[in-house]
Amino acid sequence: MTTTTDLRVGVVGAGMMGADHVNRLTTTIAGAVVSAIIEPDAGRAQAAAAHAPGAAVFSAIEQALDADAVDAVVIATPGQFHEPVLLPALEAGIPILCEKPLTQDPESSWRIVEAEQKTGKRLIQVGFMRRFDAQYRQLKQLIASGTAGELLMLRGVHRNPSVPDSYTQQMLITDSVVHEFDVVPWLAGATIRSVEVRYGKRNALSPERLREPILVLMELDNGVLVDVEMNVSVQFGYQVATEAVFQRGVARIGQPDGLQLWQDGRFQIDEHQSFTTRFKQAYDVEVQDWVDAARRGGIAGPSAWDGYKVAVACAAGVKALETEGPVAVELPPVPEFYA
Amino acid sequence: MTTTTDLRVGVVGAGMMGADHVNRLTTTIAGAVVSAIIEPDAGRAQAAAAHAPGAAVFSAIEQALDADAVDAVVIATPGQFHEPVLLPALEAGIPILCEKPLTQDPESSWRIVEAEQKTGKRLIQVGFMRRFDAQYRQLKQLIASGTAGELLMLRGVHRNPSVPDSYTQQMLITDSVVHEFDVVPWLAGATIRSVEVRYGKRNALSPERLREPILVLMELDNGVLVDVEMNVSVQFGYQVATEAVFQRGVARIGQPDGLQLWQDGRFQIDEHQSFTTRFKQAYDVEVQDWVDAARRGGIAGPSAWDGYKVAVACAAGVKALETEGPVAVELPPVPEFYA
Amino acid sequence: MTTTTDLRVGVVGAGMMGADHVNRLTTTIAGAVVSAIIEPDAGRAQAAAAHAPGAAVFSAIEQALDADAVDAVVIATPGQFHEPVLLPALEAGIPILCEKPLTQDPESSWRIVEAEQKTGKRLIQVGFMRRFDAQYRQLKQLIASGTAGELLMLRGVHRNPSVPDSYTQQMLITDSVVHEFDVVPWLAGATIRSVEVRYGKRNALSPERLREPILVLMELDNGVLVDVEMNVSVQFGYQVATEAVFQRGVARIGQPDGLQLWQDGRFQIDEHQSFTTRFKQAYDVEVQDWVDAARRGGIAGPSAWDGYKVAVACAAGVKALETEGPVAVELPPVPEFYA
Amino acid sequence: MTTTTDLRVGVVGAGMMGADHVNRLTTTIAGAVVSAIIEPDAGRAQAAAAHAPGAAVFSAIEQALDADAVDAVVIATPGQFHEPVLLPALEAGIPILCEKPLTQDPESSWRIVEAEQKTGKRLIQVGFMRRFDAQYRQLKQLIASGTAGELLMLRGVHRNPSVPDSYTQQMLITDSVVHEFDVVPWLAGATIRSVEVRYGKRNALSPERLREPILVLMELDNGVLVDVEMNVSVQFGYQVATEAVFQRGVARIGQPDGLQLWQDGRFQIDEHQSFTTRFKQAYDVEVQDWVDAARRGGIAGPSAWDGYKVAVACAAGVKALETEGPVAVELPPVPEFYA
Repeated sequence: MTTTTDLRVGVVGAGMMGADHVNRLTTTIAGAVVSAIIEPDAGRAQAAAAHAPGAAVFSAIEQALDADAVDAVVIATPGQFHEPVLLPALEAGIPILCEKPLTQDPESSWRIVEAEQKTGKRLIQVGFMRRFDAQYRQLKQLIASGTAGELLMLRGVHRNPSVPDSYTQQMLITDSVVHEFDVVPWLAGATIRSVEVRYGKRNALSPERLREPILVLMELDNGVLVDVEMNVSVQFGYQVATEAVFQRGVARIGQPDGLQLWQDGRFQIDEHQSFTTRFKQAYDVEVQDWVDAARRGGIAGPSAWDGYKVAVACAAGVKALETEGPVAVELPPVPEFYA
Repeated sequence: MTTTTDLRVGVVGAGMMGADHVNRLTTTIAGAVVSAIIEPDAGRAQAAAAHAPGAAVFSAIEQALDADAVDAVVIATPGQFHEPVLLPALEAGIPILCEKPLTQDPESSWRIVEAEQKTGKRLIQVGFMRRFDAQYRQLKQLIASGTAGELLMLRGVHRNPSVPDSYTQQMLITDSVVHEFDVVPWLAGATIRSVEVRYGKRNALSPERLREPILVLMELDNGVLVDVEMNVSVQFGYQVATEAVFQRGVARIGQPDGLQLWQDGRFQIDEHQSFTTRFKQAYDVEVQDWVDAARRGGIAGPSAWDGYKVAVACAAGVKALETEGPVAVELPPVPEFYA
Repeated sequence: MTTTTDLRVGVVGAGMMGADHVNRLTTTIAGAVVSAIIEPDAGRAQAAAAHAPGAAVFSAIEQALDADAVDAVVIATPGQFHEPVLLPALEAGIPILCEKPLTQDPESSWRIVEAEQKTGKRLIQVGFMRRFDAQYRQLKQLIASGTAGELLMLRGVHRNPSVPDSYTQQMLITDSVVHEFDVVPWLAGATIRSVEVRYGKRNALSPERLREPILVLMELDNGVLVDVEMNVSVQFGYQVATEAVFQRGVARIGQPDGLQLWQDGRFQIDEHQSFTTRFKQAYDVEVQDWVDAARRGGIAGPSAWDGYKVAVACAAGVKALETEGPVAVELPPVPEFYA
Repeated sequence: MTTTTDLRVGVVGAGMMGADHVNRLTTTIAGAVVSAIIEPDAGRAQAAAAHAPGAAVFSAIEQALDADAVDAVVIATPGQFHEPVLLPALEAGIPILCEKPLTQDPESSWRIVEAEQKTGKRLIQVGFMRRFDAQYRQLKQLIASGTAGELLMLRGVHRNPSVPDSYTQQMLITDSVVHEFDVVPWLAGATIRSVEVRYGKRNALSPERLREPILVLMELDNGVLVDVEMNVSVQFGYQVATEAVFQRGVARIGQPDGLQLWQDGRFQIDEHQSFTTRFKQAYDVEVQDWVDAARRGGIAGPSAWDGYKVAVACAAGVKALETEGPVAVELPPVPEFYA
């Protein structure tokens, strides 16, 4: 064995998502090592640390920074706890991979954007992993290439088998459609101008507090119309798919693949049951690209500005849940720093 | 050879659609014979008659009726010429298969509905052939069975490679979406409450007079939300597909089938180029079922009342082309005759 | 109603297949009427006649011919009873649609071929319905077109969920692979030179008397190699598929289509359970084409000579069930009558 | 950054395959670093080293071992050069990932097997990457689970668009079918008893020296029959697929996936053009698993004994190219060391 220089990553938050990142960084990603678990819950912290040989445990980001224990951080706490981690990490000037969302509202996201600009360097990458999925990349490339003509419409579906008790009506937007608010502008090379919510017949299998499925309509500033079916009680599996309508063709991603089986009177293909399998490769590529970029001092994906824009769209989307007709998405001019 | 009793059918209109029906009735359908071609354009009439041995040619429906030349009629003229054929045929009390639409507006459709009621018998079947397509029937059966739970949403696409010069903006609704106005209520067992039109980015390959693709949103009176992408310049082919969202599952019809070919770097399946191949079987079944029913004195498909309802929805849809937000679809109570 | 001249068809045999043809001719096919049911079992005959208004019942073909009750016959008895029906029908000089096989061995088939030649007219069409299936036709067209280059190999599967008690080991060849013996040379434009049988692991769900699945290898005289998996206890459904390997591409027919459903954790498409649905269209087209041809005095499909060639291939195939290595298929020169 | 202990891997051979492994180990694999490029061609060595910061260059394995520059080696030279690398590496007692084949004939493979046994430890893993492909793993799991019943037949295809000038007739077996000789027994839990080769019509687009496609038949000692179409001039793309026939079902892997596109009159999915994309994930998983195992002192895939068995099957396969009928595959008893 030899000794080499790996990026020392602190993982902040050791819940399901954080534990997953600890494991990924330790067993799958080249050039990085988990050097710190930052988590106030000692039991969780120890459980995660068991998978990261040599990682120290801290209860707060400030302690890890004071101890010079990390070169970079992955933030995997719930969204409302992002700001208090982001600000000290920015101050320390280290690369940050922040799970989506950047923060839970436009105001706090704006504070982050301002804080990052003060550092003079883009340090934050927001964890919208769809941009790293092979099929989304194929679709973006097809759109950019123009071989099927101009993009005219995007039609998406996001279906979950079910959601946990903690999932609220607002989270249809802030936890689920949030991905579309990032990936749609990225695909289309355009900005969301308005968001509207329409209600399908309520699924009686949904938790009582939820009124869904919904259909979310977005108008982009290049004229492209987008609709997304958001459906979190569809029982059969986890499905994220998009159809792109072009001038001369139509493209579709997210269709069933894998082993094909004829049995019991039918042809069948297993459907995903969770984002953890559907987007496993995407997470791996996202984190590897980020580690590579972080070692060179940069980022390799959605910026804090992208995170801010999504926060604004989410606020409009949440308002649209209670509003008839489109709700405008209003953004300040792009700071030169992010241009 | 022997002599048997076949239904003597008069085909009214010998354009593309009429000629197609003449050919179908002569070569594919059991128990019917084309006994008359009713068409003012003598050249067209003769051309069609060449495919129907023994058929007489008339320039007007009244002549054929006076000559006792027909037991039933298929009306295949353009929609604006349906009423002057329907009224005398109703008066003669013979079975009628009327190509869609019943007539071109709610007022004239209402007159037909009234005239039919006076005959005391349901004589009119409207030619919405999707109801006879094997896949639409599978979908209707699935909805009715409840095995996937309640229906929550329907999401359709109707894509044409291109349209003729005579196709106008209103025809997006009256010639194309018209099919959805019939088949959606039939599938969902519900009535359309409102229609709304949203515009995608205009396809620069569309004829200048057209602004499309459009997204048509419908609310049904059972709470089901419907969206239909209507797209008539998509170049690649003819595609009609529907996705039905249930409580516990999702069903899709209209996907590519036929010979699968790996060549030139890709896996490929030919797409339909026209409704004539996509719905060939549906037309055959529709006409055979109608002939069988007509020989017994009845109908076997959408009634004049269905045709009236579609006319009302079309009027709302046309208004929606120019209106922001939903346009209500208001229907009188169902006459007892059609209950 | 009017009276027209339809082909008066006698259906010989009123078992499942015969009853199916009675129904088809009565309700689906243009220009024909079932004028006679020819079946020694009176109960069966009456049951079938109930679906054919006006049909007379006879216990033997000779009676129907004597009564001048038929213009043409469809023979749907088991194969061993074909010859005693074919010979009088040939003598009567009427068009014949003979369900496969022509007869049950090369010797009797040769007698039929000789008898037909004496009539001076091709009267017999053998009921190999695959030639009328849309996908087989697409594949034949692709082969003939040369757009994917020369055909190099054909790889088929024929899978049944199960077989009745009467199905014997030999019937793997004479009842099932028999279809390939007709359709492969038709597709490839070539003649079978040898047949070989290889055994897969025996399916413990097969009836005890059967040793299957088998793999049948054929060499064609143009160098094309063919393998066919023959499998009659596969439980899940009825599947007939072919893959054609070309110089520059590969084509596949017989894949699952119809309504697509996501439910219970998977994407699924119902598979056929019987040839009656898989080949329904093919039977309809076959019989309609034959009726049209018969009314003009000809045939529209596989000839008696095709039937004879298949009988010779079957005899080789049956021998191959018990032989190691290839068994030659030896044919006399094509009589000029069939050239 | 921090310093950690990574496995120092020497990559032997810096051709396409070796360069690929250098890149993979450097940018994708956790816990390993390329510490040495071992390649007599200095230009190639330098080119590969440019992608492996800190790697030393050696012209022979012995030099790298003498310099204590490697903890483990990946052998990526052509097969005929494997033995002279394997023997010193075994003697050094370090973990070895040897690209397929183990060696180019049964005799030399036997020498390796003997040499490895002398070390007292399984050090060699052979690079049959299909075992690490997600779909092959799903298929193996399905076979092992018994949910579709016993396995009865396996039907494979291996199609290349074209092959380089160096590809010979024997390489149909030793370079291509070699993968099936490993993966088929692994899937079926059985041993190959015989190999037979049948010739399809020769592809006129094949290089003159090649007579292909071929159909390779294998009998396994559990009664399962296997056929594999081997085709290296199929032009359209790279395709590796398998169909497994069970008592109650049929499974298929290797079908087209990825972005679906309707354009130019058809539905289409890009097909792979090379094993480098089709099996990219499989290579990544294979190497990561091997690195993880090597750090613990073991292997995580096909052993030297598996490599030996494949060498024996290859020898039979090469003989079968020139032999009519099956050629027996005869193996000595499994040494206890590998039991």
